[in-house]
Amino acid sequence: MPAAMIDGKAIAEEFRARIGVGVADLKTTHNLTPGLAVVLVGEDPASQVYVRNKGVATKAAGMASFEYRLDKDVSEADLIAQVTALNKDDDVHGILVQFPVPPQITQQTIIETISPSKDVDGLNPVNAGRLASRLDALTPCTPQGSVMLAKQTLGNLEGLHAVIVGRSNLVGKPVAQLLLQENCTVTMAHSRTRDLADLCRTADILVAAVGIPEMVKADWVKPGACVIDVGINRIDAPERGEGKTRLVGDVDFEAVAEIAGHITPVPGGVGPMTIACLLKNTLDAACVQAGLDKINL
Amino acid sequence: MPAAMIDGKAIAEEFRARIGVGVADLKTTHNLTPGLAVVLVGEDPASQVYVRNKGVATKAAGMASFEYRLDKDVSEADLIAQVTALNKDDDVHGILVQFPVPPQITQQTIIETISPSKDVDGLNPVNAGRLASRLDALTPCTPQGSVMLAKQTLGNLEGLHAVIVGRSNLVGKPVAQLLLQENCTVTMAHSRTRDLADLCRTADILVAAVGIPEMVKADWVKPGACVIDVGINRIDAPERGEGKTRLVGDVDFEAVAEIAGHITPVPGGVGPMTIACLLKNTLDAACVQAGLDKINL
Ligand SMILES: NC(=O)c1ccc[n+]([C@@H]2O[C@H](COP(=O)([O-])OP(=O)(O)OC[C@H]3O[C@@H](n4cnc5c(N)ncnc54)[C@H](OP(=O)(O)O)[C@@H]3O)[C@@H](O)[C@H]2O)c1
Ligand SMILES: NC(=O)c1ccc[n+]([C@@H]2O[C@H](COP(=O)([O-])OP(=O)(O)OC[C@H]3O[C@@H](n4cnc5c(N)ncnc54)[C@H](OP(=O)(O)O)[C@@H]3O)[C@@H](O)[C@H]2O)c1
Repeated sequence: MPAAMIDGKAIAEEFRARIGVGVADLKTTHNLTPGLAVVLVGEDPASQVYVRNKGVATKAAGMASFEYRLDKDVSEADLIAQVTALNKDDDVHGILVQFPVPPQITQQTIIETISPSKDVDGLNPVNAGRLASRLDALTPCTPQGSVMLAKQTLGNLEGLHAVIVGRSNLVGKPVAQLLLQENCTVTMAHSRTRDLADLCRTADILVAAVGIPEMVKADWVKPGACVIDVGINRIDAPERGEGKTRLVGDVDFEAVAEIAGHITPVPGGVGPMTIACLLKNTLDAACVQAGLDKINL
Repeated sequence: MPAAMIDGKAIAEEFRARIGVGVADLKTTHNLTPGLAVVLVGEDPASQVYVRNKGVATKAAGMASFEYRLDKDVSEADLIAQVTALNKDDDVHGILVQFPVPPQITQQTIIETISPSKDVDGLNPVNAGRLASRLDALTPCTPQGSVMLAKQTLGNLEGLHAVIVGRSNLVGKPVAQLLLQENCTVTMAHSRTRDLADLCRTADILVAAVGIPEMVKADWVKPGACVIDVGINRIDAPERGEGKTRLVGDVDFEAVAEIAGHITPVPGGVGPMTIACLLKNTLDAACVQAGLDKINL
């Protein structure tokens, strides 16, 4: 395997440690403790795990963690009331509603209810627009983490051709904006793209954010390219025993690692960066809400 | 010249006629007259021409036109007060502040002062974010016009590779979002792009929005491609007499027309579409502010 593995787990740990130092500083200098509120509707097991992990990480960074668990049948109005109360709560600097929400609730309505200044998921259109306009913004966490990994690996990204497969509001589009800000030439590809393999082969940085297990094959990758695999897909793993599953990305890791220059594994690549960037966003939001400069970590 | 010329002037005239019908309908059915307010600071001759043309076109479409001319020394606070008054004025559905503004005024502050619902220039980050998030938005006029020309010329754009040279908030980035919504594969290029000519040669749709006279050469263009030239550059034209000038685009028109399948001229291409889309945005804004559906033209 010639590709160097990008150790997202280690990079995220080191980043979280620096965030912890920032949080401690903020307490000492301004007696301010950043607080993150996570709202979970219903009892989806995966969502419960995510919410628990976020709470643990928040506390580990020295921040205040607030959890709100609402019944799966909660009305949209009641969820809006909960978010509105958090918008007004001075101890809460970041608000994250765990998606998906049950069908009686319109996700976009909730996204737009969260105050842009507390929108640590970066999904409010105000933040999407501020990002696109190169203004100060809270930026979605997974895209931030993905671009951090590319930068830590390659240094200056200026002039590199980045191909992003996937164009969701949550991942693909903000990754494109962030890589454009790094002065990459940026191509956005998606399900209607023709000759996707040929296009991917032109990429110096290839970001896969599709949700199709191991879709990106070795012959889609230019030798030496940096491959960032955002996908998290659970597939059957009968080889591990009956009914067992395992996580894979959107990239055929074993084969692509023979060709790429650098590659993120799944798990242990982009995933751990997401939660670190959530903490960073919460710290930033706390500073901005207090009228302070963001802390340079 | 094998390329078919895209007659933006004719397409814009026909579009403006349809807008006029929509405006007349709105008056008959809802006794509502869309109103556009244009604010001009100072006496820049080019800006004065633009503002005058907008006023004429607005009235020709049957809309109300309001013009505010402020002294070049007006304070930022006074301009903000003027815009705020227009935000509250029920007869005004669209507000356009003619840029550039003098140095004592921060353009971005003015952009963010205009109510997103009256922001017919589409520059407020709220509208940029709504566009990026595929929500209903007021979209910048020149990008809208550029994409309309491509659609009228090629029909369905799905799967075509669009290369956009230029990434401004006003032109390049919104063009990218709109072409992505048309299901193009979209590449954003700019001053740091490497091998720009090679990249442009991969484009089925090539959009030039740079501001460099005749930069795009014939050998940058794939035979048969659709070339949309957004640039408007005034250059010396001594052949027309001493001190004379003429307008050219960002594309070397004569030479590229030998290669391209379709091409917009300058003037008479994208330019006329811009003002038509401004009228369309004003009509849309009037409908939305009145709680009505937009009129399908
Ligand atoms: N690491 C993390 O923390 C993290 C966070 C979020 C998401 N993820 C993972 O990232 C992946 C993407 O997430 P998402 O939320 O962006 O997903 P999504 O909203 O479903 O978007 C998927 C995108 O992939 C495109 N696509 C689908 N099939 C394709 C094909 N055959 N060829 C090319 N493009 C195709 C879609 O194109 P169209 O737009 O044309 O439909 C769409 O833009 C998932 O595996 C998800 O689990 C990971
Ligand atoms: N038809 C109309 O109604 C209309 C409306 C608006 C504008 N325009 C015209 O459209 C053109 C662009 O306007 P704008 O407001 O977008 O201009 P702008 O804000 O100056 O942006 C120019 C863009 O071109 C890029 N660029 C500069 N030099 C380049 C080079 N050598 N190679 C590749 N890219 C380069 C810049 O890249 P960086 O970001 O890396 O600096 C920037 O993104 C101008 O000619 C303007 O007059 C026409």
